[in-house]
Amino acid sequence: MTGFVSLAGAGPGDPELISLKTVDRLRRADLVLYDALVHPDVFTHAPTAQRFYVGKRAGRHAMKQPEINALLVRQAQEGRRVVRLKCGDPFVLGRGGEEALALSEAGIPYEVIPGVTSAVMAPATIGVPVTHRGAASGFVVVSGHDPTAYRPVLGALPADAVTVVVLMAFGRRADIGRTLLDAGWSPDTGAALVAGAGSTGARHWIGRIADLGREGFDPAGAPVTLTLGPTVALSATLGSALAQPAVKEALA
Amino acid sequence: MTGFVSLAGAGPGDPELISLKTVDRLRRADLVLYDALVHPDVFTHAPTAQRFYVGKRAGRHAMKQPEINALLVRQAQEGRRVVRLKCGDPFVLGRGGEEALALSEAGIPYEVIPGVTSAVMAPATIGVPVTHRGAASGFVVVSGHDPTAYRPVLGALPADAVTVVVLMAFGRRADIGRTLLDAGWSPDTGAALVAGAGSTGARHWIGRIADLGREGFDPAGAPVTLTLGPTVALSATLGSALAQPAVKEALA
Repeated sequence: MTGFVSLAGAGPGDPELISLKTVDRLRRADLVLYDALVHPDVFTHAPTAQRFYVGKRAGRHAMKQPEINALLVRQAQEGRRVVRLKCGDPFVLGRGGEEALALSEAGIPYEVIPGVTSAVMAPATIGVPVTHRGAASGFVVVSGHDPTAYRPVLGALPADAVTVVVLMAFGRRADIGRTLLDAGWSPDTGAALVAGAGSTGARHWIGRIADLGREGFDPAGAPVTLTLGPTVALSATLGSALAQPAVKEALA
Repeated sequence: MTGFVSLAGAGPGDPELISLKTVDRLRRADLVLYDALVHPDVFTHAPTAQRFYVGKRAGRHAMKQPEINALLVRQAQEGRRVVRLKCGDPFVLGRGGEEALALSEAGIPYEVIPGVTSAVMAPATIGVPVTHRGAASGFVVVSGHDPTAYRPVLGALPADAVTVVVLMAFGRRADIGRTLLDAGWSPDTGAALVAGAGSTGARHWIGRIADLGREGFDPAGAPVTLTLGPTVALSATLGSALAQPAVKEALA
């Protein structure tokens, strides 16, 4: 008897952004393997499941990727219903593809449940749409980990014409800004850092590309999403509207 | 007494991808303004709300954007709780930014609830991750409506190094493929069309960039997402695994 694996997105930060489908799978799960940054409230949907932390924070892994893959396969082979719960979306820089390959190769039945990605959600929390008529007709998502990967992409984009979202961006934010400036982007084009988007402790900085790296932003250990491009200017209007006390009152 | 507007993503196609937060707002809504392609099952969460269709299909608008903006403002001014329900995510090519601006300018309290975007979800349904270690470290999302907007972006990307996702892609799929080939992408790099992703009537085609436009794909009127890049090749393994009868059995 073989079990089943759901590679599921928990959404980022805000536990209410989880989907009905992921909630259903958590309810039926025997085991939940979860990442760092998955909100603890999410586990109220999995009252009967065992939980096992396999995440990584600040480069330190609780478990390496091949070990996670092997654990998923083994637990399913023992007949368990496993939910592999990931922050955001499993296929957006989440290594879900590697887990899916391991499961496919072992013949384990599995599904993929997409989630809200912080690439879209983090800028939205400060009033920055990734697309906006007349400002950005598209957007680009890259990781800030590897300059040899992001530089050829960002350096080729038409200047100030699309939105760039960089996940895991904090350490290289100055280099990312410089890459765009070298490609002809305006130093005055907007740039925004959001740390811990969607969580109660979220913080942000909004400024210009030219100021990245000397803005003195302190993410307080939370993961940082960097958004660059002409739509960042909308935060002056939309961001303040979203932060109105009237919004909190209306939802109370 | 002023009402409140939730600009909310319903997720694409599959009604189970809606978030708990959007479900909560639907439960409390007086009025739901909804787009084409919002799944009818979603309205089971809004038993007491009036519903009003403001969508567009095949270029024909039930209501023009400035009229939708004005309606949102007017209904909120009359004290109603309004949910503006959009397919996918409100800020991914959904004109949510324009509605947010209209609400901000009128001083209406509102919120934005992100949703699962079909840009990530459509390829996932056929086993194509938008990022994958060693294949694509990032992805680009554009609309297929306007060649003058997508050509400068797609034509500049490093060949075969990222995933390109084009929403509303069907009419211009051949031109999109040609744009990448002209920029040095390999004719053998994968391309995939998904129509009605996540819905029970979803259909797809998987092939090569060079075959786009002569593949004879019939989307049967559903919106089409086009995915291009090295991760499309993963669908040979992941897509067939996801389609196994064992998956349906395990979830029954």
